[in-house]
Parts: sequence; C-alpha cells; structure tokens
Amino acid sequence: MSADWFRRRFLPGGPVSAPRPPRPRASPVPYRRPRFLRGSGSSTSTADASRRPDSRPRPVRSPVRGRALPWNAGYAEIINAEKSEFNEDQAACGKLCIRRCEFGVEEDQEWLTLCPEEVLTGHYWALFDGHGGPAAAILAANTLHSCLRRQLEAVVDGMMTTQPPMHLSGCCVCPSDPQFVEEKGIRTEDLVIGALESAFQECDEVIGRELEASGQVGGCTALVAVSLQGKLYVANAGDSRAILVRRDEVRPLSSEFTPETERQRIQQLAFVYPELLAGEFTRLEFPRRLKGDDLGQKVLFRDHHMSGWSYKCVEKSDLKYPLIHGQGKQARLLGTLAVSRGLGDHQLRVLDTNIQLKPFLLSVPQVTVLDVDQLEPEERDVVVMATDGLWDVLSNEQVAWLVRSFLSDNREDPHRFSELAQMLIHRTQGKDDSPTQEGQVSYDDVSVFVIPLHNQDQRRSSH
Amino acid sequence: MSADWFRRRFLPGGPVSAPRPPRPRASPVPYRRPRFLRGSGSSTSTADASRRPDSRPRPVRSPVRGRALPWNAGYAEIINAEKSEFNEDQAACGKLCIRRCEFGVEEDQEWLTLCPEEVLTGHYWALFDGHGGPAAAILAANTLHSCLRRQLEAVVDGMMTTQPPMHLSGCCVCPSDPQFVEEKGIRTEDLVIGALESAFQECDEVIGRELEASGQVGGCTALVAVSLQGKLYVANAGDSRAILVRRDEVRPLSSEFTPETERQRIQQLAFVYPELLAGEFTRLEFPRRLKGDDLGQKVLFRDHHMSGWSYKCVEKSDLKYPLIHGQGKQARLLGTLAVSRGLGDHQLRVLDTNIQLKPFLLSVPQVTVLDVDQLEPEERDVVVMATDGLWDVLSNEQVAWLVRSFLSDNREDPHRFSELAQMLIHRTQGKDDSPTQEGQVSYDDVSVFVIPLHNQDQRRSSH
Repeated sequence: MSADWFRRRFLPGGPVSAPRPPRPRASPVPYRRPRFLRGSGSSTSTADASRRPDSRPRPVRSPVRGRALPWNAGYAEIINAEKSEFNEDQAACGKLCIRRCEFGVEEDQEWLTLCPEEVLTGHYWALFDGHGGPAAAILAANTLHSCLRRQLEAVVDGMMTTQPPMHLSGCCVCPSDPQFVEEKGIRTEDLVIGALESAFQECDEVIGRELEASGQVGGCTALVAVSLQGKLYVANAGDSRAILVRRDEVRPLSSEFTPETERQRIQQLAFVYPELLAGEFTRLEFPRRLKGDDLGQKVLFRDHHMSGWSYKCVEKSDLKYPLIHGQGKQARLLGTLAVSRGLGDHQLRVLDTNIQLKPFLLSVPQVTVLDVDQLEPEERDVVVMATDGLWDVLSNEQVAWLVRSFLSDNREDPHRFSELAQMLIHRTQGKDDSPTQEGQVSYDDVSVFVIPLHNQDQRRSSH
Repeated sequence: MSADWFRRRFLPGGPVSAPRPPRPRASPVPYRRPRFLRGSGSSTSTADASRRPDSRPRPVRSPVRGRALPWNAGYAEIINAEKSEFNEDQAACGKLCIRRCEFGVEEDQEWLTLCPEEVLTGHYWALFDGHGGPAAAILAANTLHSCLRRQLEAVVDGMMTTQPPMHLSGCCVCPSDPQFVEEKGIRTEDLVIGALESAFQECDEVIGRELEASGQVGGCTALVAVSLQGKLYVANAGDSRAILVRRDEVRPLSSEFTPETERQRIQQLAFVYPELLAGEFTRLEFPRRLKGDDLGQKVLFRDHHMSGWSYKCVEKSDLKYPLIHGQGKQARLLGTLAVSRGLGDHQLRVLDTNIQLKPFLLSVPQVTVLDVDQLEPEERDVVVMATDGLWDVLSNEQVAWLVRSFLSDNREDPHRFSELAQMLIHRTQGKDDSPTQEGQVSYDDVSVFVIPLHNQDQRRSSH
C-alpha cells in the first residue's frame, strides 16, 4: 500500500478514478468446513431460521479418528447459537514445503528451476474468525498458507545461513556487509517474521479482490502458528489467542487487537486525517457518549497522545458519536467492528454513511517466537489456539488447569489432543459443573487447536 | 496541536501564513547552572576554546553541604570534554504545592479563590539534556514544573477521591457515571499521568515561543520524577534513564526514545506524509546506506509495518539517504538528531535543506508509576536518574553494584546520597580501576540524581 494509493482510496478530493469497465461477476465463495473435517458428520449447517436461538443442535466436531493433523494436534469446533446461519470460524493446517527460488538466474536458465528442490519443511495451523459473512474466513483458509509459502520461498536462501546475508544473491558489494547485518542484530527468525507480515498483507489483497469480484463482503481475524527450523512462530491479527501451557507455566503467545487495545493508533490516524470521520464522529475518548446536559461541564477524556486521563470542557463537537465506544467485548470501532486487525472488510462502511472502516484496520500481524528446541518440551506441554468464543468464558489459567488435569489422566490415548480440544469446547457450553466453569456459556462460534510440543524437534526435517 | 496546524506548519502547499509584523527580539536565555548548585564553586563555564579537548578542568559539582534536596536526594554533574562551550545538561528539583482551583465558581465569587488552599504536596526532580545549544534545557528547567503544577491543579479535585469522577464539578448528569468510570478502569494515577503528558506538551510550546522570540535554537530531552500520594511517577522523553535499585532487584523505570526504538512510528509518519522527506530521504531501513553497485540486487530492508526483515530489489529511489541511519549511539533521525522525543527543536532543519525535524519528534513522555507505599522500601533502596552520559559507560547492573556497595559502606553519613552521585560521575571518567569500570570514559555532560525511597511515605503530606 503506497501513500498515494491510501489517499486516492480513502480521502475525499483525491483523484477521481476512471469508471471501470464492467467485468463479469465471479461466482460467490462456496461455504464449507475445514477440509480435515471431511467425513466427521454433516458438514453443512443445520440452521433453521424459524427456531429460537439455542434450539438448534450444536454438535462439537473434530476430525474423524485416524486422520492425524500435523504433530498429532487436536482440533474441535462448535457453531454459534444461531447468531449467524453459518459457522463464521474457519481453520486450516498442513505441512509447509518451502522450495528454493533461484534469484539472479538468467532468463535463459529458468528451465533449471522448473523442479526446484525442497529446502525446508514446516507445519502450519491457522484459525480465522469471520464477521459480516463467512466468505473472508473461507478465502483466508484457502489462501494464506500459499501466500506464506511464496513469501518464505522468496527469502529461504537467507534463512539457510546462520545470519541472513545483506544480499540474497550471495554477492558482496561492500566487504563490511556482514558487520552491518551483525550490528543491526538481524537473525534468521526476522526473515520468517517479515514473511508472515508480508503474507498477511498479500492475503488481505487477495481477499479484497476476490470479494469485490464475487460481490460479497466480510472480514476475518487470523491467528497462525508456523513451525520452522525448531521454532514456533505465532502471528496474530485480531482477537483470537494462543497460549503455551507447561507444567509450571502459562505463557500468552499472542495479544488481542481490538479498538480498545489499539486506541492510540486509531485516534492518531483520525488526528492526521480528520476527513476519515466525515464530521460524524469525535476522535476523543470519553467514559460514555456525552449528552446535551454535559455541555460546558468538565468531563474525563483522553486523546491520541495520552495514556493517562484528563478533564476537558465539553463543546458541541464532543457530543458526536465516539470513534471508539464501549468497554471490553462491547467496544466498537466507529460503532461497527469489535476488532482492529484482520483480513478483508474492504467494502465495510458505517451504517447509512460513506465512512470506511478499512483505513483504521491493520492486516499486519504481531508475531511472537517460541524457541521449541531450547524449551526442551515435556510430554504434557502444549500450545492452545482458539477463537475468542473460548476466551470469553475461560481464562488462560482455567484453560491451563483443564489441559493439565486432562492430560495427566490421559497419558496413552493417541487421540488425547483431539479429545482435549473437544473437552475445551464442551466447557464453553455450560454443560459441566466443574469449579473452573462457573456456569459461563459461549453463544459464539468456537474453534480450538491443541498442539503438543514434545518430541516435535525430532520430526523436523530440513535437507 | 491540531491536524490543521500540523498541515499548515509542516506541509508544503498549505495556506501561506501572512507576513508577521516584526516584533522586538527578546533577550537571549541566559546561561546558568541549577539554582541548588549556588555557592558550590565557580558556576560559569571555565571553557577556553584555545585548549585542546579534555585539557580543561572538569570538576564534579554537587550542592554545598547543608543544602538538602527533596528527600535528601544526592546530585552531581560534570561538564563534557569541550564538546560544547556550555554544559548542556540542566537539572531542577523542589517541592510541588498543588492548590485547589475552584471550577464552577461564579465570576463574582472569584475573590474567594485568591488564596486557594494547598491540597496536595509532592516533590519533583528533573534532568534535561540539551542539544544545539543550552537554551532549551534552561527553559525547560525554568518552566516544566510550573506547567506540571498548573496541569495538576486543573485535575486535583479528581485526584482527591478514590476514583476520579466523570464530572469534575461533582454534579452527575447521568446516574451511572461512576459505573462507566469503573468499567474503564480509570484510577487517580491516570490523572497524574495525563497531567504529566499535558505538562510536557505545554512546556514544549513555551520553549518554542521563547526561542523564536529570542532568536535562539536547540532542544533537550526531559526525565522527570514526581512523588505524589505515595507514588513515584517517572516521565521520560528522550534517552536519559531512571532505574530502581533494591537489595535484590534492578528495575528500569523508563525506556529510551531514539530513532531506532521509535523506527516504526517515524517511518509510519513518512508513509502517510511523504512530503515531509522532500524527495531527499528514503523511508525504508537498510542495514547500511545503499550504493550504485547495489542497484538491482536483493537486499535486506524493512518498512513501517514490519518488525521482521525481508529482501527487496534495489531501485534508484532506495539509494537516497535513509530516514533513520546508523546503529546504537550513532543512530540519527534524518542524519541530524540522536533522540526522537524531547522538548524544543521547533526550528531545526536538516543541514542545507528545508526539511524539518519537528514533525517526527514527540514531546509526549512515557510515564511509569512506582507504588512506593506498597514497595515498603528498605534503607538502601534508591532511584538513580541520569542523562545518557552515565549509561553510555555503565550498565544498569554496574550502577546497581556501585550503589549497593557504596551504601553498605556508608550507612550513617547524612551526605551519603550526594557522595554516591559524585562517585557515580567519577566512575564515568576512567579514573578508577574498579572491576566494573572497564576503562570506559564518558566525554559527554553527565548529571545524576540519587533519590532514597526509605521512610519517604512518612514525610508525605496531603491535607
């Protein structure tokens, strides 16, 4: 995305784009459940709009026994309580084969790379939580791994050395280049982080094009775990969450991106481009929406540069609807969206206005790196990845307690991680009287991966 | 600062400002050392431009014995090795008396507030590290505490309750206001943080006006510690540093703001406003400045949205000077400035160009809060605040080691914190063969406060 493009796309008064020739509309993205669920039961929705919420059967679904996911990971999901017709969560996982892409090869030698060698193998698990329809999440589940593979292949030669070279071609323009790279502290894992960041952006562009072509709308969050060279990379854009659970440790591997957690970034953009609010919203944050009676009073507020609070004398323009409004799960960006990062939403506008959400959304993930080799994982060490439906009703500590007690009772069962994922979903349905449950029920779509870490370093292959 | 102002001030093609009537030039800000050093030796510079560097006497200065600083804090400073004629560091400290400012009082009752009651007492310690001349740091030392007092007085009524009220007047427009404030998690300390943030901005504006009026230039970093209601607030804008040293703990109380630590914020601004670089700089980061020979090669780079690295094919525009260049202490913003936050620099431009530094600089500090009451400080627990000259040659751990060993040998001396500050300065001069020294010498100005925490909660008064 260039600055020019940003202005043309989002700011009034920018160069008017020439009318596009009408192009044939592509067929809509077909609804589906993750491929690895095939054969595990009715795969289409059983929704019936005439039933009242919670009356439709909500089976917990997992891959059929015998279909092993990478690292023998467990997976389970449940559809929401008729919030939407379809399950808007999607998932994907698989092996990631990175081949060498020969840079600097002359064009007449291109035939040499027709059968590129596989240089690196990894694994991939991803959860997408859709909104405004299932299409964006389905596209992301179909596409993101390909974007990531392409981005990794573009840098894989740099990843095969102990420190990435300044030039990918291996030629050295300046003799002190290794020293510059050393001083900047650039490591192999920075190339994977960069590839994940670029892959999310590329996937976002694909989704934008595909949805426009098929006349569909929607967006999704994305939470991805990738194993490569003995490390696990967790990339997150949205409000899903991954945690590491060990015997004596619960470690968050991602943070949530919501209008509240990204308040300063969002207010800052509205500060430099007030046009984006079209005079309909106030950039300032107040504890509640102000009313006429507040005029002239000194009320609590904060602006983009503040992490603390202060008081301001209320003027008429402060009575507008706030750019970010509400607390916790109710917090909304422009009264519309509950997340501030993710893929898609290119067409999303505030109801009855021309105000676009997209300029405030980021498709870039935050990436954390877990050094699995260094961790020396024990048998019951797992990573739990889940969409927000799980974390709305269970805390990290509650999930860790459930994981530990389940795995200590089920040491041998080869399907234990799948069973564990199903058990976690059941615990979100208020069907159990365990002390950690406290009767909380999730009416949202919920999807869970449980990824065991033990012995995975032995399985890693890189030739 | 409004968005309109930002555009008028910094972007080409904005409304041209009408020529200002010439106004009488104010007299330049006079050079001085901190007031609390009076009587402690020759207070003006002993610089002699004809001497070679390091040949001028560099005495370590401290307040005269018997002049107690707040909380019996120690202070010491040394001038640089003829890097500049004047010591560009400045310091200030003192009692902070917050009086009530009666909001909502009718104008004809204003006489009632002529002698406002003092409602809160705190203490204040501040270090300013100037660049481009001593004027900005002197103005900051003269001004910031007044800005802070004013900002605190504007919210002090909100600070005197357990939770800040939605309305400062005490009137309640909406019965559920306390609930909104509760849900937002707004605490009394957020008002102090907000006041510090606003005070830094106000002081920055004062410095801009004063320097323009007197025809002077320059800027400074600012590191401030404020004690209020049993808490110590540390606000930092620049590359000075404060740490807490306890028997078993060394805790950083600030982080440094440099072109490197704020790379993404700075690149982001150049992305949305490329005009700010006037076609002279490239926004992208490369491990070194690229040369003609790099053209067409794939080299390591990162852009504003990336925390990882990737490779890009070098184009001609990439050969420009980088927006952020160099590593560590050599890192520069626009080839000019080593810090990315601070006060002043309103007139600073890149040499021989019209490119301004100010839009990339932030005057907002980051504030951390130390709950001194809860800490139950022991006798040797101190906060060490110092300008970067100290931290360039001593690590946090080395300073902690020096502090602990000095204080365990000097338990009774009432001047021990002053002696300790002097000792720390001596250790930056390579005059000692202690194992922690390693022969490193600082040629910079160095200023140090050592603030003891023990028993200070008893001295705190708030009526």
